[in-house]
Amino acid sequence: MTKTSNAMWGGRFATGPDAIMEAINASIGFDKRLARQDIEGSRAHAAMLAATGIITDKDAEAIREGLLTVLSEIEGGNFAFSTALEDIHMNVEARLKEIIGEPAGRLHTARSRNDQVAVDFRLWVRDQCDAADAALLAIIQALLAQAEAAADWVMPGFTHLQVAQPVTLGHHLMAYVEMFARDRSRFADARKRMNESPLGAAALAGTSFPIDRHMTAAALGFDRPTANSLDSTSDRDFALEYLAAASICAMHLSRLSEELVIWSTAQFRFVRMSDRWSTGSSIMPQKRNPDAAELIRAKIGRIMGANVALMTVMKGLPLTYSKDMQEDKEQVFDAADNLMLALAAMTGMISDMTANRDVMEKAAATGFSTATDLADWLVRELNLPFRDAHHVTGTLVALAEGKACDLPDLTLADMQGVHAGIRADIFDVLGVQNSVASRTSYGGTAPTNVRAQIQRWKDAL
Amino acid sequence: MTKTSNAMWGGRFATGPDAIMEAINASIGFDKRLARQDIEGSRAHAAMLAATGIITDKDAEAIREGLLTVLSEIEGGNFAFSTALEDIHMNVEARLKEIIGEPAGRLHTARSRNDQVAVDFRLWVRDQCDAADAALLAIIQALLAQAEAAADWVMPGFTHLQVAQPVTLGHHLMAYVEMFARDRSRFADARKRMNESPLGAAALAGTSFPIDRHMTAAALGFDRPTANSLDSTSDRDFALEYLAAASICAMHLSRLSEELVIWSTAQFRFVRMSDRWSTGSSIMPQKRNPDAAELIRAKIGRIMGANVALMTVMKGLPLTYSKDMQEDKEQVFDAADNLMLALAAMTGMISDMTANRDVMEKAAATGFSTATDLADWLVRELNLPFRDAHHVTGTLVALAEGKACDLPDLTLADMQGVHAGIRADIFDVLGVQNSVASRTSYGGTAPTNVRAQIQRWKDAL
Amino acid sequence: MTKTSNAMWGGRFATGPDAIMEAINASIGFDKRLARQDIEGSRAHAAMLAATGIITDKDAEAIREGLLTVLSEIEGGNFAFSTALEDIHMNVEARLKEIIGEPAGRLHTARSRNDQVAVDFRLWVRDQCDAADAALLAIIQALLAQAEAAADWVMPGFTHLQVAQPVTLGHHLMAYVEMFARDRSRFADARKRMNESPLGAAALAGTSFPIDRHMTAAALGFDRPTANSLDSTSDRDFALEYLAAASICAMHLSRLSEELVIWSTAQFRFVRMSDRWSTGSSIMPQKRNPDAAELIRAKIGRIMGANVALMTVMKGLPLTYSKDMQEDKEQVFDAADNLMLALAAMTGMISDMTANRDVMEKAAATGFSTATDLADWLVRELNLPFRDAHHVTGTLVALAEGKACDLPDLTLADMQGVHAGIRADIFDVLGVQNSVASRTSYGGTAPTNVRAQIQRWKDAL
Amino acid sequence: MTKTSNAMWGGRFATGPDAIMEAINASIGFDKRLARQDIEGSRAHAAMLAATGIITDKDAEAIREGLLTVLSEIEGGNFAFSTALEDIHMNVEARLKEIIGEPAGRLHTARSRNDQVAVDFRLWVRDQCDAADAALLAIIQALLAQAEAAADWVMPGFTHLQVAQPVTLGHHLMAYVEMFARDRSRFADARKRMNESPLGAAALAGTSFPIDRHMTAAALGFDRPTANSLDSTSDRDFALEYLAAASICAMHLSRLSEELVIWSTAQFRFVRMSDRWSTGSSIMPQKRNPDAAELIRAKIGRIMGANVALMTVMKGLPLTYSKDMQEDKEQVFDAADNLMLALAAMTGMISDMTANRDVMEKAAATGFSTATDLADWLVRELNLPFRDAHHVTGTLVALAEGKACDLPDLTLADMQGVHAGIRADIFDVLGVQNSVASRTSYGGTAPTNVRAQIQRWKDAL
Repeated sequence: MTKTSNAMWGGRFATGPDAIMEAINASIGFDKRLARQDIEGSRAHAAMLAATGIITDKDAEAIREGLLTVLSEIEGGNFAFSTALEDIHMNVEARLKEIIGEPAGRLHTARSRNDQVAVDFRLWVRDQCDAADAALLAIIQALLAQAEAAADWVMPGFTHLQVAQPVTLGHHLMAYVEMFARDRSRFADARKRMNESPLGAAALAGTSFPIDRHMTAAALGFDRPTANSLDSTSDRDFALEYLAAASICAMHLSRLSEELVIWSTAQFRFVRMSDRWSTGSSIMPQKRNPDAAELIRAKIGRIMGANVALMTVMKGLPLTYSKDMQEDKEQVFDAADNLMLALAAMTGMISDMTANRDVMEKAAATGFSTATDLADWLVRELNLPFRDAHHVTGTLVALAEGKACDLPDLTLADMQGVHAGIRADIFDVLGVQNSVASRTSYGGTAPTNVRAQIQRWKDAL
Repeated sequence: MTKTSNAMWGGRFATGPDAIMEAINASIGFDKRLARQDIEGSRAHAAMLAATGIITDKDAEAIREGLLTVLSEIEGGNFAFSTALEDIHMNVEARLKEIIGEPAGRLHTARSRNDQVAVDFRLWVRDQCDAADAALLAIIQALLAQAEAAADWVMPGFTHLQVAQPVTLGHHLMAYVEMFARDRSRFADARKRMNESPLGAAALAGTSFPIDRHMTAAALGFDRPTANSLDSTSDRDFALEYLAAASICAMHLSRLSEELVIWSTAQFRFVRMSDRWSTGSSIMPQKRNPDAAELIRAKIGRIMGANVALMTVMKGLPLTYSKDMQEDKEQVFDAADNLMLALAAMTGMISDMTANRDVMEKAAATGFSTATDLADWLVRELNLPFRDAHHVTGTLVALAEGKACDLPDLTLADMQGVHAGIRADIFDVLGVQNSVASRTSYGGTAPTNVRAQIQRWKDAL
Repeated sequence: MTKTSNAMWGGRFATGPDAIMEAINASIGFDKRLARQDIEGSRAHAAMLAATGIITDKDAEAIREGLLTVLSEIEGGNFAFSTALEDIHMNVEARLKEIIGEPAGRLHTARSRNDQVAVDFRLWVRDQCDAADAALLAIIQALLAQAEAAADWVMPGFTHLQVAQPVTLGHHLMAYVEMFARDRSRFADARKRMNESPLGAAALAGTSFPIDRHMTAAALGFDRPTANSLDSTSDRDFALEYLAAASICAMHLSRLSEELVIWSTAQFRFVRMSDRWSTGSSIMPQKRNPDAAELIRAKIGRIMGANVALMTVMKGLPLTYSKDMQEDKEQVFDAADNLMLALAAMTGMISDMTANRDVMEKAAATGFSTATDLADWLVRELNLPFRDAHHVTGTLVALAEGKACDLPDLTLADMQGVHAGIRADIFDVLGVQNSVASRTSYGGTAPTNVRAQIQRWKDAL
Repeated sequence: MTKTSNAMWGGRFATGPDAIMEAINASIGFDKRLARQDIEGSRAHAAMLAATGIITDKDAEAIREGLLTVLSEIEGGNFAFSTALEDIHMNVEARLKEIIGEPAGRLHTARSRNDQVAVDFRLWVRDQCDAADAALLAIIQALLAQAEAAADWVMPGFTHLQVAQPVTLGHHLMAYVEMFARDRSRFADARKRMNESPLGAAALAGTSFPIDRHMTAAALGFDRPTANSLDSTSDRDFALEYLAAASICAMHLSRLSEELVIWSTAQFRFVRMSDRWSTGSSIMPQKRNPDAAELIRAKIGRIMGANVALMTVMKGLPLTYSKDMQEDKEQVFDAADNLMLALAAMTGMISDMTANRDVMEKAAATGFSTATDLADWLVRELNLPFRDAHHVTGTLVALAEGKACDLPDLTLADMQGVHAGIRADIFDVLGVQNSVASRTSYGGTAPTNVRAQIQRWKDAL
């Protein structure tokens, strides 16, 4: 395994690549992560070559068995990767030759590294779609559990981070269920679109061997073979679409993290992160630095950065394969690793966190947060136009502000002094509990609604 | 229409916003593009308010008619937009009040600007998905027409921009059909996912009015109402997903443009862009600057830039609406305008371009481009292992190189001197026409395959 | 002014550009912002052409006067821009010809649109560096004024948004002075580096006319002419460097905005934004939505987006001018407009904001925020190793926590029970005022330091 | 070295971080690259603590010696990094304690991890500015050597990748010297701006110990200490500015790479990359895939991606340190590694490349590339207005085109038929050699100019 990949090309180059070229050119440092996919692809290819009579069954069997040996060596950590052999494909093939000898030379019939790397990487990204799906399901379930417990816990609903109207914590958490469910849907669409097999596109033009691309496609779980050989080897849409979906998902995680960081401050005290997801100070015990939340918040940086990186690489590349495309893998590997880590950590944090119901409810009851309810009562019960109702409400709020009290503390007389038609039942809408209970429009924050949505999701999952 | 939006808030601010605040805060300069969507949304809302008994049929009718008047004023260019009224919503409502008086004040019942802008913008982006779909269909049809004419025109297939194997121009163009078809599919998925109505989420919490969100959703062509009011007003996934799909599409356009720029050089002369899509020099007549291709190539910059911009804006925003989100529209407007322009220009360029069949075929026949065919013949006919066949081929190529001829110019004796088993029928695979005709694997470049793919697409569209 | 630019090329194109091509190709819609720079450049060019005898003084004078007329028409709003004439250069020249006739045809001697646009855009970006410098100076002065007033106002210093140690508001604001001062320095470096004149590089190769590029450089305020004609017309580093500096500056603005948004919440109540920079609710008077802060926070999106956009455009462009580069201007225009607006708005907000000294100081005094001071006392006075001192402090804090009091509320006996060596003068370091006063290391938060830094900046500006 | 960092915090956390938290939280996997900087910083800090009497000379000596031992262990590969100890700082300190015992506990006096990481990372980035400077100097020298050899080798100057005017290869290469020289200047400015020491800012507020920050600053080669402790620990401008400079440099590399890829095609054949920087095909000997050029072209992706990533991370972070900032290092490490690799590979490629002088000159002589020279002659010699001269030239070119010849092949009579004033000396400007020789304006392509520029650079370096 010491001969160079260059030597395998038939020795046409007088000069061997030196250290810089090897450093910039070799991909084995990262593409060894594709070992399993590479071997799966090769095994499917060998089986097809035998089935179509291109190689003998005996050779195919030797190849397929030998590849399993290589895989077990790699997975067992007993494989010496060679940078001189450049990439995972050459490393595997060279080792296969050592193990099984001559038949190894027949494996590469009717394919090329161009379709081989395309199929390997596609299988890897497809796996990541599945992994993201599972991780999103876990976070959704963690959110559902917390949302169920807090379906009627009142907290301030914010706009501009200013208290706007009371909502429930359950409702707030369910907003993220919607987001993560959309993320699942996006990964599912991406998976479906990428699930075509480029194997058999060969270098770029297809092949004259009577291969059966539908057979290898089926063996590898693809829905069908790709339809154009040039596109097959030069397409990286699947990686970009994965990164796009991952970026939006990371953005959702950044929003939730931001809220957890703010809610964990001494000033908000809405939630307490568990020890597990925090770090502290040896001398400031109240200090629970929400490190995990901060790190998750930051992950959108590198994931969107990877998206920019690969898009920039692909910009303006003529067909078909160009070596620029070798820059695809590290970006996706890093983005996927960090997305999975962030989802796992967020799932843990959400599961462990403790909300401070009293503090939240008290915060919700400040700042005339039910003024909208009062205005809506005026519209609904007294038939005032919306804009007029707002004017009356503004006056009442100013009155309460002058008296340093909140709206429910005004007397009926106070209220009738502003608008004679106001009746005692207006007080029914002014408390935060009344407020949230009344928001029964579809998708609204009424606890009955929230519980119905939780049930809908539980049924669906 | 001169009173300020501030005044509409009830005059609670002692100080009016000054010029800087107005400049940074007002969105009417760009969100007036949402006028049609805003009015559609309001008309649907008014009809629902009447159907549910929240307002009278008479008021609803006045509102709906009045809104049509406003729309016709705007579309006719007879509407004086006011920056003091900040945004399209306030501009429309203020004008409605001038036209119909008091009932205008009832329109905003059971909704808020937060769900209003969400529905307007979603409708706009949904329209853009449809527009992109139509434009992609047009470019696909232009490519199909050119591909059909050139299904068997031989050209060099490149890897690393080096001649690798012969392919056909039809096959090459069909690679882009695959790409643009994936783009259509991506826009279709995005459209489906975004097709939920946020109308009725109100400010953030839903409402206590007995609204019927399914009715407004249906009236506006949405599949259903959104399920969580907090998510409804703080979600901009639909815009980001549009931008992600647009970015990938723009990347495809950049690749095709790059090829057209290179193919138009004096050195390649593969294609000639029509006058319409080029600019020239008054004194260098041969100079046909492929301006349109260059401009299209560049569009990925601003479209991916918009993607980065909006993702950065959304990073770490707590729920629900924050004013940061006002930065969403200009990015999407600019990206959509430029995507549509680029698709239209590319469609025109492709339709008008003239390929130079002779130059392409001659280029394909250089550089031992059928060496792979020779090697494959050795594998197939003489049962040589792939790697051995490559060794024999390398030797034959070196022989031809030494004789300053190409492979088909070698004699059978020459060949047999290298490998005794070679037979005369090897010459059947050496010409570029033979080469492309032989690549009959599914997705391969054989003209029969190319024509079958063209037919498949024609049937599907 | 109705003949097309195409016609000016000598009518070599059989077909005129149609609407799509015009829409994608014409830049007059945005590059008219370069009118003043274009005319300045042309006037300098004409003067040089006369000084070197290439044109007559009389023609030069006619050109220079005519250009002033054109400029006054444009600045007076009396200029009919023509899209058919494509860009600002052709629009100006065509109008000049209408005004002065034949000599107008001599202006373009020894130059080309390629160096013309390079000089125009460079002048524009150079102006923006100056504008950014002035705006940054204004914001620094606003910060200095607030910092001086609050040099000894105690507030919590945060890490992880958790209270860590007391600092002063003056010190906190001075951190931003450092940031904005670095921004000034970055714009100054960029300005210096870009301050070379590309005029006279002509189309790409220089010219055979005996021009004096040093003369035009000096006339336009450049330090020198550029040294390589190919680089001169294909370089857009100056725009990218401006965008890079603007992005970092916008990042600083986003951090300050984030703090103002958080500090404005009902939970923090550290600051109150003035009416001018907030919007409110007609019915929730306490609600002061920090709209300006949110909009400023968002600006990093579009500015960094512009940076990505232009970098993507420039990626992989061969020398020299390609039409892709026409995409440079809109990105820089938008970024510059928004940076200037954000800086102006932030300056206004900072000037107007009212800090709540009592709330801040009270917040600083919670959470054992002087535990570090206690530990440092143990190290300094009792010579304990740092790590041991932290252990003792942790025990004392736990004791205070158990007693539900803060550190200064412990008795000396309590303290000596933990470490016998503690003396009564330990209490001198425990209050937040004592804490900040003691941080006298260079750059530390002690009010004397803060005032010294303010004075240093005042002296420097 | 097995106890956890958590344990070092004093055991306040009931629960240890589990595997996910460790994976997302620990930075030792990458920040071990800061070992040398960390130890340099600690050694300077210890010396200062002794000089100011905060610790004894003996303790300082033990610490400083012990740190050298740790450094030699790390550099010798004999150091067991512990993930439980989280980061390089804790790993070094824990090992120091094992080696020297109790005095190790005094090292962290008057500092914190926040200023420690700030100084370590700043030193690392400063080193990278120096490394980039050296690498840029090398590439400039490689370009100068090639430019000198080819100062008068005529090649086509391109605009829009269309032949425009003749230039020399030396001139073309010198355009890149200008770009890379600007890059050096940018790194130098960044280095100067970042060259301030944050050490002694402590956690965020400075310290009450009588430290001497000027002393540590000087010891570490900084120009001065930073002026504000809050800024010191929360600033990452230096990293962003490095990334901005690196991005622009990578863009330059992408342009040169693109040219080399295009020039290496069978269609251009302007240059031949050496074997060292190419890969080939075992059976297509003429195929020299310009792998190194393609990989360099792609590097702008990950470098600008890193810029986006870190900018996104920093967006909206409140002061001072937040854990998000831990995401800074991997981005800069990856960008710096790849920039250095790309510069080294490009230097090698440029040094090794062989230009095909004949092919280039022949290409320059096509397409009426000296039409501009002809027009300039008409202006200069016959005093025609520029626009009129272009009209005459266009007619002459059309005449030549009709005769299927180039401009120098027309007879004087032909020319005088178009414009009677034309004289025989017009032929002096029509050959490509004449053309380039005539472009003597400052920065123009005349070989004398090119040689003068080369000399200027040689003198300056």
